[in-house]
Amino acid sequence: MSGLDTLTAPRGVLYGGDWNPEQWTPDVWREDVALMQAAGVNLVSVGIFSWATLEPEPGRFELAWLDEVLDLLHGAGVAVDLATPCASPPPWLAHRFPETCAVDAQGVRMSVGSRNHFCPGSQVYRDHVARVVQVLVDRYAEHPAVAMWHVGNEFGQTCWCDLCAQRLRTWLRDRYGDVDALNAAWATAFWSQRYSSFDEVVPPRTAPYLHNPAAELDFRRFTSDQLREVHREQVAIIRERSAAPVTTNFMNFFPGVDQHAWADDVDVVADDCYTDPADPASPARAALAHDLVRGVRRGEPWLLMEQAAGAVNWRAHNVPKSTRTMVLDSLRAVAHGADGVCYFQWRASTGGAERFHSAMVPHAGPDTDLHRAVRAQGALLQRLRPVAGTRVDARVALVFDWPAWWAGELLPARPSARLDVLGQLAAYHEPLWRAGVATDVVPPSADLDRYDVVVVPSLHAVDDASAANVATVPARGGVLLVGPFSGVADEHARVRRGRFPVPWTGVLGASGEDWRPLDDAGVTVASDRYGTFTATTWSEHVRTDGAEVLATYADGDLAGHPALLRRRDPGGGEAWYVTTVPPRDVLAAVLADALAAAGVAAPLVDLPEDVEAARRGDVLFLLNRSRSPRAVPLPAWAAGSTDLLTGDAVADELHLPAEGAAALLAPTEETP
Amino acid sequence: MSGLDTLTAPRGVLYGGDWNPEQWTPDVWREDVALMQAAGVNLVSVGIFSWATLEPEPGRFELAWLDEVLDLLHGAGVAVDLATPCASPPPWLAHRFPETCAVDAQGVRMSVGSRNHFCPGSQVYRDHVARVVQVLVDRYAEHPAVAMWHVGNEFGQTCWCDLCAQRLRTWLRDRYGDVDALNAAWATAFWSQRYSSFDEVVPPRTAPYLHNPAAELDFRRFTSDQLREVHREQVAIIRERSAAPVTTNFMNFFPGVDQHAWADDVDVVADDCYTDPADPASPARAALAHDLVRGVRRGEPWLLMEQAAGAVNWRAHNVPKSTRTMVLDSLRAVAHGADGVCYFQWRASTGGAERFHSAMVPHAGPDTDLHRAVRAQGALLQRLRPVAGTRVDARVALVFDWPAWWAGELLPARPSARLDVLGQLAAYHEPLWRAGVATDVVPPSADLDRYDVVVVPSLHAVDDASAANVATVPARGGVLLVGPFSGVADEHARVRRGRFPVPWTGVLGASGEDWRPLDDAGVTVASDRYGTFTATTWSEHVRTDGAEVLATYADGDLAGHPALLRRRDPGGGEAWYVTTVPPRDVLAAVLADALAAAGVAAPLVDLPEDVEAARRGDVLFLLNRSRSPRAVPLPAWAAGSTDLLTGDAVADELHLPAEGAAALLAPTEETP
Amino acid sequence: MSGLDTLTAPRGVLYGGDWNPEQWTPDVWREDVALMQAAGVNLVSVGIFSWATLEPEPGRFELAWLDEVLDLLHGAGVAVDLATPCASPPPWLAHRFPETCAVDAQGVRMSVGSRNHFCPGSQVYRDHVARVVQVLVDRYAEHPAVAMWHVGNEFGQTCWCDLCAQRLRTWLRDRYGDVDALNAAWATAFWSQRYSSFDEVVPPRTAPYLHNPAAELDFRRFTSDQLREVHREQVAIIRERSAAPVTTNFMNFFPGVDQHAWADDVDVVADDCYTDPADPASPARAALAHDLVRGVRRGEPWLLMEQAAGAVNWRAHNVPKSTRTMVLDSLRAVAHGADGVCYFQWRASTGGAERFHSAMVPHAGPDTDLHRAVRAQGALLQRLRPVAGTRVDARVALVFDWPAWWAGELLPARPSARLDVLGQLAAYHEPLWRAGVATDVVPPSADLDRYDVVVVPSLHAVDDASAANVATVPARGGVLLVGPFSGVADEHARVRRGRFPVPWTGVLGASGEDWRPLDDAGVTVASDRYGTFTATTWSEHVRTDGAEVLATYADGDLAGHPALLRRRDPGGGEAWYVTTVPPRDVLAAVLADALAAAGVAAPLVDLPEDVEAARRGDVLFLLNRSRSPRAVPLPAWAAGSTDLLTGDAVADELHLPAEGAAALLAPTEETP
Repeated sequence: MSGLDTLTAPRGVLYGGDWNPEQWTPDVWREDVALMQAAGVNLVSVGIFSWATLEPEPGRFELAWLDEVLDLLHGAGVAVDLATPCASPPPWLAHRFPETCAVDAQGVRMSVGSRNHFCPGSQVYRDHVARVVQVLVDRYAEHPAVAMWHVGNEFGQTCWCDLCAQRLRTWLRDRYGDVDALNAAWATAFWSQRYSSFDEVVPPRTAPYLHNPAAELDFRRFTSDQLREVHREQVAIIRERSAAPVTTNFMNFFPGVDQHAWADDVDVVADDCYTDPADPASPARAALAHDLVRGVRRGEPWLLMEQAAGAVNWRAHNVPKSTRTMVLDSLRAVAHGADGVCYFQWRASTGGAERFHSAMVPHAGPDTDLHRAVRAQGALLQRLRPVAGTRVDARVALVFDWPAWWAGELLPARPSARLDVLGQLAAYHEPLWRAGVATDVVPPSADLDRYDVVVVPSLHAVDDASAANVATVPARGGVLLVGPFSGVADEHARVRRGRFPVPWTGVLGASGEDWRPLDDAGVTVASDRYGTFTATTWSEHVRTDGAEVLATYADGDLAGHPALLRRRDPGGGEAWYVTTVPPRDVLAAVLADALAAAGVAAPLVDLPEDVEAARRGDVLFLLNRSRSPRAVPLPAWAAGSTDLLTGDAVADELHLPAEGAAALLAPTEETP
Repeated sequence: MSGLDTLTAPRGVLYGGDWNPEQWTPDVWREDVALMQAAGVNLVSVGIFSWATLEPEPGRFELAWLDEVLDLLHGAGVAVDLATPCASPPPWLAHRFPETCAVDAQGVRMSVGSRNHFCPGSQVYRDHVARVVQVLVDRYAEHPAVAMWHVGNEFGQTCWCDLCAQRLRTWLRDRYGDVDALNAAWATAFWSQRYSSFDEVVPPRTAPYLHNPAAELDFRRFTSDQLREVHREQVAIIRERSAAPVTTNFMNFFPGVDQHAWADDVDVVADDCYTDPADPASPARAALAHDLVRGVRRGEPWLLMEQAAGAVNWRAHNVPKSTRTMVLDSLRAVAHGADGVCYFQWRASTGGAERFHSAMVPHAGPDTDLHRAVRAQGALLQRLRPVAGTRVDARVALVFDWPAWWAGELLPARPSARLDVLGQLAAYHEPLWRAGVATDVVPPSADLDRYDVVVVPSLHAVDDASAANVATVPARGGVLLVGPFSGVADEHARVRRGRFPVPWTGVLGASGEDWRPLDDAGVTVASDRYGTFTATTWSEHVRTDGAEVLATYADGDLAGHPALLRRRDPGGGEAWYVTTVPPRDVLAAVLADALAAAGVAAPLVDLPEDVEAARRGDVLFLLNRSRSPRAVPLPAWAAGSTDLLTGDAVADELHLPAEGAAALLAPTEETP
Repeated sequence: MSGLDTLTAPRGVLYGGDWNPEQWTPDVWREDVALMQAAGVNLVSVGIFSWATLEPEPGRFELAWLDEVLDLLHGAGVAVDLATPCASPPPWLAHRFPETCAVDAQGVRMSVGSRNHFCPGSQVYRDHVARVVQVLVDRYAEHPAVAMWHVGNEFGQTCWCDLCAQRLRTWLRDRYGDVDALNAAWATAFWSQRYSSFDEVVPPRTAPYLHNPAAELDFRRFTSDQLREVHREQVAIIRERSAAPVTTNFMNFFPGVDQHAWADDVDVVADDCYTDPADPASPARAALAHDLVRGVRRGEPWLLMEQAAGAVNWRAHNVPKSTRTMVLDSLRAVAHGADGVCYFQWRASTGGAERFHSAMVPHAGPDTDLHRAVRAQGALLQRLRPVAGTRVDARVALVFDWPAWWAGELLPARPSARLDVLGQLAAYHEPLWRAGVATDVVPPSADLDRYDVVVVPSLHAVDDASAANVATVPARGGVLLVGPFSGVADEHARVRRGRFPVPWTGVLGASGEDWRPLDDAGVTVASDRYGTFTATTWSEHVRTDGAEVLATYADGDLAGHPALLRRRDPGGGEAWYVTTVPPRDVLAAVLADALAAAGVAAPLVDLPEDVEAARRGDVLFLLNRSRSPRAVPLPAWAAGSTDLLTGDAVADELHLPAEGAAALLAPTEETP
């Protein structure tokens, strides 16, 4: 059961956006609420950046305007996701307490004039947060409009100040107990970094050369944990008085917060998703982000909290979505498990740094193509009520882990910056997405027994327990697929000694001795099954210890050595090992073979290029990204479905208009 | 009447450069002055960087050397533009008063060892400036050599220190009266930035994310105003004792100083112009810069204070001018209204950071091709005496405004960094320059009634009064041409609500609802008149509200919508609206049509490629940039002209040598 | 006699690497020492980063582990190069004395957590260094394992802090005596930089614009001298008690240390050489580096202290060497004068910032291809014992000088950043290396009488005495070849006045007046001898004053002016002057002509592409870089040689395997 149930049960799919009434006069409020009703909006987030309006001077609170706003919304049947305003403290706080502002690695203290300038380690900041949150909770916990709490906004601040240094030391004491344990974990014997006391530890501030990777890794852990503490302190105040679900807006593949660690601190997983419309990979990347978000709390429905209706403002060149793309993006989110699609923001600001960020009501007002599309989308989403609360049933897991990402991509001085964790993850996800195969992105400690295929594209660092968890897949009949430079290090980024990947040489039936980044020409690989192809970026010097060699390096320093191996496990499963970066079509073929071995089939075959398929519960979503109509032949089980978006029944072929979509509810439960 | 009249009346066109005798021994002074006389030099700027020589220790002044220098120059008939040395305070000032050094946005205090390290907000600095200026004025106000005062050098310092923060607050109090007015102007309701007191405002120092654009805009205004104050304090001291004109050297399209605001603080507008000889667009850019500088004080003759005789030293790769290009550059400046052409600097320094900047006397001495060309140029300029004091009669205005530039190009988070103000300005200026059509670059508040055609290539922000000023053009029979993303915001960079461009939808007969930056492929535009072409970078979703549609988007999201519109005004004028970035030839055709509609003709037709024409008063300058001779057919009115540069009469065809020039004085006043 | 004699006499060629036992447990120590013996390792560097292990708390020393380590090594016959650990002070030092940490030009104090964070100007740091060095010397001066001392590591710290500012002032007082001399040397009359007292001088910290070049140049000199002082203070302590040779590891073309100034402070010149295996120019660059290192102490044998066995970790993409390349790299070093080849490091670290730097024992252990190659290489090097102690006899000198490099490439605002000193040096070295002509890289003050050909590719700044030293070459019958932008400035980076190159116009028979960087198209040059070619980057406007013009600019501003000149000296020698950047083959032809004029012949003719030849003493090394076998025809004198690597005699043709090598000892001393 998801934390969204209390919201979706009476409303179906949620629809709305951030609304910032403090930027507008009451007459605009009334126009806005009327427009919301007309557009089918049923949820707005209020108050995210209202602290300076709520508390214009220290301790003096002005809440009457918010009373009026909440009453107005409630009167119009729009639920409120009420925010705590901790993301942007008022200038008076920084003016009175400069130590509430964060400091960067160079020692520069952040100034007011933007947002997110706070130091999460400052007790003064936290006390002021607690006070304003208490005031809000006291006043609005029982307000009937308040359906959810939105704690802060896009947590992600990193601070290197002395207050945070003090909290870091406490965190390290808790983690390691004594300083010798820290010295061992951080390998401080290297470069004479041994600490004689926790007091000597500082955050990884500007240094002349590369920082200790384990120290950087722990600083990232600490930073995520410290923000989590700021979050939890507010949740505790809320839960004293309110039973409404609590959420905060994550940012999918944002490195600052380990969402897997935060998952149980929220009731609803919410995400801000801003892919670039100018990037052709944008739909695939969005789908990957959605599969990540859905995996954060074991497949629960989630909420797309922010996206753009047109263009954003913060890229160098901001190509906008078309209104049709806007709808496809929303439907994709629902297809991948979202129970609501919201936007930043309802009405475009006239001032401030985001005045050119698109909104549901543009500067030109409601009599515009964009707003008409927003209204039409509201009607469309109402038709998807049967989908709300249902789950995506994924039989494939992609393994991803924040600390492993940090260790594998964000620490200094790795063998190659060209082999990046997210790039590998996307490369392995893309063929699955293209085939319409549902995939959960999950941490290596997840319950993997739910999955028939477990893909580990790039998991640089892994602790022993998680490594063992992954290793069990083939023995219980599943298919495990491991990509390059995985299983290399332990949880402190220490390289495991021995033939790699040390924890998995047994299950893979293969072992290696040398990682060999490739020069720009790449390397030729020959395979009976996959043909001869050029692999790039990376190679590994491995030998088979029992695995079948499916492809072999054909030139270069590793000529004659295995490039791709498969071991059939006595338990019935298989273990695949990809030691290089194959071209896209070869990787797709490898994944197809792995799926076939596990008996995982795509929902549709012969899907036209540019048409996406995604199953959620009993509904099959089909999204046509092309600017031409597409015909999709339907399998027997889907023929006779009803398209929820139109109410029409479809026969054995579906005709999708240009950039159009369908949501097919099959006639029976007898679907494969 | 121009402030240069007292200088040019006895001398004709001014010629000379910066001279830094403090770098040389007296024997070199005497050699230099003799060389100046031989070269026809009649003006040198002295003392710009002499502070540490004039006042080697606090309060101890050494002026005897300057007495000798001024006497020497006076004896040789060379006028002196005597500088106040505020640009580079001596090291002893920073050593004794560290607060006289500027601080950057990161909090780093500038060090001595370069120049321009001063904090313009430091009262200690200003007091020391006042003292040294007073000493100079007391000593030299009556010296017969002193013909002009040169206040400081290339004003442009920005400082984020606490002293400047204090002055910023005072400036804001003066501007806004109370803090609520500031909050409204800056839209501080966005991101919880509301100030409860002016005391809380700081300059836009390093922050975690985008700054408030209105705050940045005001900080730029304040910075320009604060520098202006430093300038005015010195002018006040000078004017107590001296009637000689006052100038300072601007840097054309330098963002740091709003020259339009400074214009009436100087008697002479002077410019430093350093276009890149390696850039083929350099001549067009120089002409644009000259048209800007001339427009600063309503078309008055101006002074080219600094240029390079060969190469500069501060680019990564400094291709030098040829000696012929050196002459063409000087003549271009005169043709565009300069009454004098000067150089940085007279004699090449052997040490210091600019030791590789070219000079009128190179390291190798006077027996060099470069210095021979300098001498020949002096003789040439003497022949242009009839031009001195005359004006360029421009019927076309290009609208440009520093605050609008800041708002449109230099603030963060705009729709596209690819649509830059200066790039658009250059794109609209270039066809006019190529046709030899005189064009003044003026602010939107200028008296536009002087112009038949008013072009607004890119005016992002505009106040109501200026917007109204621009809007009147068609009604009084003129032609107005508005480019994309213009009229968007008010003077606080706040987006105007409604269909854009809000102030001009009526006059343009068109209105828009969405700015749509284009992906790299651009968009096809179809036009009966201009053919089918690919536009790039930018499009706007507009509709006609009465204007004629001259071109239509033919593909992409805006297919079928207008791209180029023209409204004929009942008052006899026209209003054109360009919503995208057309290719160069299409834009040239549009501008030609707009000129034709206003009855503005080019001085010559069938001008050869690479030959520039420019009218000033009764003289038509023709500059051949190519490395081959060119023949230019002359119109009837010009046949029989005298070429001032040679004294020769020309018939109906002018023969220009390779990289040669002519300055034709027509036989009668009966020119078109 | 070289400082290495006491090491090589009993051992032959040295072989080993950095060993960091503090990272490992004693059982690993024992495994390591056994593996070293098996691999023929006879020298390891110990203790470089051991300070925090040796002195875990201030004043408390733990040396028992090092006793054991040294005993173990001694027992195994492995000599020890014992380090002073000053490169990386323990965290407790920074914690207690923050002023021991360096400060950058922006004022940011370096943090612990990396290495090299110390301030070399801090007396507290120096006192702590002295204490730990004294402890080590007292304990181990007589230990039989200790064969050499390794002072610090890769000296190169630059610090801008107040302590260093104080030391800088003292250094300047020593250099200039009074402040007026400094003002003259630094040309402070430019930009009003005159100092009234040494107290006003600060290091070149962040400033608004270009720094004074002479100040920057002296700051680089001071920085090198200050590090040298830190080095010398430790050497003094060592020499009180130990007669073992002292070394420190330089980094060939590293700008931070003027090795020529340091040369006599060490007994052994040691180098760290990390060329990029992915760069095809890597072998040529390595050879150039070796020729530099050998020239530091007048041709003495030197020690390759650090190189990589496979990949490094600090580039963005680290392509590893093959094991065959590893051997070729080592043999190249020996051929160019090294008496030992060592690695960083013996055993790969599991933690720390260099955990992905390759090592002689990789993470996967000794049963790997890499370690097997390490062992085989040890056996190979033993066969080269006859080479140890012999010298390379070079008849060609390439002139290079640290201060001239700083002045010519690293100071701001030069005519072109595209004409870089190292690029020019490499361009002139490469044809010599390709021909197998031995070349010493030496400073302009070197005894040039040892050389028949002296090449000055790019020597921007030169003092009068050195300029005169270079000028004497042709008069005594040698060949001098001067490249562009040479002899421009004096030792204070002040441009010499007059026709350039001022000190050499007489010897060159030519003089110039203008440096003219070329636009991207370059310029055509015509020559009877070298054909017509396109030169790039740079041209000079020169005239012949007696020299023969060998090539002439054929287009552009300098059409008709000389591009390449040669003057035959009455003394029998020649002086060549190259005023531009010719293509590689033209430059090779020019150099071949210059060599021929001096009677310098290559050891072999018709050398196959990809085969290097290098003579050292009586041994001719031949290295086949290609992945195919190569046949090399041998001259008469070499026929019948013995290949030291195999013990085989060779006839008149040598057959090299793919990526194979030979070291031919000629049968008689009668070699040319």
